[in-house]
Amino acid sequence: MEPDFQITDANRVVRGPKRALYDRQAVYQIIDNAAVAHVAIAAGGEYPLAVIPMFHARQEDAILFHGARSSRLMKTLASGIPVCISFTMVDGIVLAKSLFHHSMNYRSVVLFGTGELIEGDGERLAAMKVLSERIMPGRWDDARKPNRKELDATAVVRVCVETASAKVRIGGPLDEPEDLGLPIWSGVVPIHCRAGNPVSDEFSIGLELPDYISAFVREYNSRNAM
Amino acid sequence: MEPDFQITDANRVVRGPKRALYDRQAVYQIIDNAAVAHVAIAAGGEYPLAVIPMFHARQEDAILFHGARSSRLMKTLASGIPVCISFTMVDGIVLAKSLFHHSMNYRSVVLFGTGELIEGDGERLAAMKVLSERIMPGRWDDARKPNRKELDATAVVRVCVETASAKVRIGGPLDEPEDLGLPIWSGVVPIHCRAGNPVSDEFSIGLELPDYISAFVREYNSRNAM
Repeated sequence: MEPDFQITDANRVVRGPKRALYDRQAVYQIIDNAAVAHVAIAAGGEYPLAVIPMFHARQEDAILFHGARSSRLMKTLASGIPVCISFTMVDGIVLAKSLFHHSMNYRSVVLFGTGELIEGDGERLAAMKVLSERIMPGRWDDARKPNRKELDATAVVRVCVETASAKVRIGGPLDEPEDLGLPIWSGVVPIHCRAGNPVSDEFSIGLELPDYISAFVREYNSRNAM
Repeated sequence: MEPDFQITDANRVVRGPKRALYDRQAVYQIIDNAAVAHVAIAAGGEYPLAVIPMFHARQEDAILFHGARSSRLMKTLASGIPVCISFTMVDGIVLAKSLFHHSMNYRSVVLFGTGELIEGDGERLAAMKVLSERIMPGRWDDARKPNRKELDATAVVRVCVETASAKVRIGGPLDEPEDLGLPIWSGVVPIHCRAGNPVSDEFSIGLELPDYISAFVREYNSRNAM
């Protein structure tokens, strides 16, 4: 079992500390389920920061990203500067009797680490496979593999997780005791993401939908079911 | 009609410029539909940046946030420093015949602006109502309004939108011409968010679900239907 993240000034959850989690398993589960990562980098010019959404996958204690080798974001991530990455899933709208106690149910992670370029075809292909299998398990063995030109155009970056924390809210509203008798409906409107029926393109007429895609849709919807 | 955002170094979409949109209407529509905002602020210490997910609403050309008056994030936003905010919705997984052309369908906005504290009860209450009506239209008139103590504990911040851009990908995979004949299933797995049946808490037994909540669920699911 991996040790928990040490609580420091960087990852301490100050607001709502009872909703904070510092154990690696909880943090990694949220990262693995989040559709996208929001990556903050230092940008030059008038605005010193930029936040960019990226597709990610986790490989042990690192977050993997890929992108065009020529992109500013990939170059910045590869340069070894400290980065912050945030992952968020919204699970519901919490309607309390008082407006003050309205809230959202969510699972979120804020993570700090340092990026590095993955080099060498072997390691790069292994990382690309992790990214591909995260988006669709089984796809790597089915689709056409990257050729030399495509490999050369792609940068793959690993951000080693140095510290992180999760913040999770679940359950119903938490109203003031004196408000509990008010005749105002209170409760939760659940929000969940679903995968729809796969839509084939015009170049797949007559091709059967592979089993791993149907399995993905089923698994996605059962994981996100309420 | 509001003018488009001027393209500058801050908001220019360099990767995939054909997917970029700079018109205010497209940008604001994405902001209004996104469940959360990812806000980047400068943090002290070892890691110079932090990205935090926040609930937001738009009021004309500004993004509103609320939070505890004592929070670091609210204080930083109120201090008038430049901030970057990102909004992202994932709409599908794009499965091309080649791994290289795999992608996601998405709608995203990256926005730059400057924050300021909203002062005075009148303006603060008006902003809180915009935030409340964004999360659940009709709720403001139904729930118990903030009292003096709750008002005093809450900071409301407005980030004036100075520049922004949207990036949107829709449609099927874009494979290389020489790959189109490969017998590999290609297409899109749609992803969409749904609101589930509202779940009342134990303090609402015997209370009917208000019409505005049922209407919200219907409207939410028809807006996100595929």
